[in-house]
Amino acid sequence: MDRIITPIIVKLGGSVITIKEKPFTPNLSVINRLAREIKRADRKSLIIIHGGGSYGHPLAREYNIIEGLKDQRQLIGFSKTRQAMMVLNKMIVDSLIQQNIPTISVQPSAFILTDQGRISEMNISFIERMLRINLIPLLYGDAVLDEKIGFSILSGDQIASNIAIKFKVNQIIICVDVDGLFNEDPKKNPKANIIEEIELDALKNLMNNLSRARTTDVTGGMFGKIVELIPAVESGIKVKIINAKKVNRLYKALKNEKVKGTEIKQR
Amino acid sequence: MDRIITPIIVKLGGSVITIKEKPFTPNLSVINRLAREIKRADRKSLIIIHGGGSYGHPLAREYNIIEGLKDQRQLIGFSKTRQAMMVLNKMIVDSLIQQNIPTISVQPSAFILTDQGRISEMNISFIERMLRINLIPLLYGDAVLDEKIGFSILSGDQIASNIAIKFKVNQIIICVDVDGLFNEDPKKNPKANIIEEIELDALKNLMNNLSRARTTDVTGGMFGKIVELIPAVESGIKVKIINAKKVNRLYKALKNEKVKGTEIKQR
Repeated sequence: MDRIITPIIVKLGGSVITIKEKPFTPNLSVINRLAREIKRADRKSLIIIHGGGSYGHPLAREYNIIEGLKDQRQLIGFSKTRQAMMVLNKMIVDSLIQQNIPTISVQPSAFILTDQGRISEMNISFIERMLRINLIPLLYGDAVLDEKIGFSILSGDQIASNIAIKFKVNQIIICVDVDGLFNEDPKKNPKANIIEEIELDALKNLMNNLSRARTTDVTGGMFGKIVELIPAVESGIKVKIINAKKVNRLYKALKNEKVKGTEIKQR
Repeated sequence: MDRIITPIIVKLGGSVITIKEKPFTPNLSVINRLAREIKRADRKSLIIIHGGGSYGHPLAREYNIIEGLKDQRQLIGFSKTRQAMMVLNKMIVDSLIQQNIPTISVQPSAFILTDQGRISEMNISFIERMLRINLIPLLYGDAVLDEKIGFSILSGDQIASNIAIKFKVNQIIICVDVDGLFNEDPKKNPKANIIEEIELDALKNLMNNLSRARTTDVTGGMFGKIVELIPAVESGIKVKIINAKKVNRLYKALKNEKVKGTEIKQR
């Protein structure tokens, strides 16, 4: 088969596409605007991944899916968690189809296996074939099968990082509801400044200090997210964190235009 | 891994779960009743597959998906066809979850590849893992990737037959909207009798005569369906065709009770 055009990866955070505080509530105006920005940017090779936000998390928590299968009563919770993700996913696909973007959902639990929550098997050949014929694959955080603990939760961030590495992409755009990483906790100090660029070593130091201190989180609550993305940065992929609740930031990032946010690179 | 309990396969025809004549119209009362029958039958190891009916077919036809990718304008049709199947699938899953059946959809296009419409790659290990932890996998006819023609349509019947062979199941239950196969065309002769049992050789003769004659179809329009199922019968699997629009027939078939219908067996 011919080589594919190297895709760019866009991760739409659950905090962007849903109303975090209200279970099972989409942020439809943001979803539709982002679909328009993606259309307008007109990238030929793109993989989109979305998070669970207020759809996946409440049920996953209620049935403790992340801890694995301990009790048969969790099984229906696994079904319900997946089904909630499908409801959210449907809205994203509808919105992208509305913009005439030939989107194809790819169910992570149908082809990604984890080992205690970490991806252990993932056949990317279907995604590659989709890209080859100009379909836009759309993945999402999902309740998946786990070879050790029966099942678990796989975050969209872990999927993004892994797929990025496998496809040797140049860039991952992480869409969240804050402007990026800050030099101080922006919730405590409104004068905190955004970190426009940070190299891997500096980021790792920052993370080490954070995990020691555990008092303030200058990542704006994105500690877990960044931990997932570090392997991608280590393999040379540029990660750009932007606030996609603000108009045109995703568009600009997709067009490689200057945009407010934090860029993480290897060096 | 331990051996799994051999599953039974139930195929819910599109003509049963949707209103055939009305595009995008589910037959919700039938869907809900079948979910209750499945619950009541309480089979421990089960794989359910559903067809597209009035959801998948109109869009697949409009964009000529079955013929493969010939024109970039078909791409959005591929997206729309898949999305229509997701809408139908959601209703089936909702109905099964309502009955406390821990159902897990498994997206065929995420793990099954075809070669000019015939399954050429299918990793069943995820379905096997689901069965192992007592989840009920639910597949469906889908618009899938094709290694030769870009994409195609994969029928639920072809999936049922292939999965049945791979899992060496004992039985496939095919749910349609007619009582079974008849000795004459039931639409032309209301006194036509149902064939209660037929062996493979007799069935093949019947099919040969049919494809030569092309005038009457004593299969009740199920010629294509039976062609798909023959490889399963050849490998020793019993196929039972029942009318699932009639109350309790699926229940009885699942319980191995005597039920009106046609049983096809190797000999």
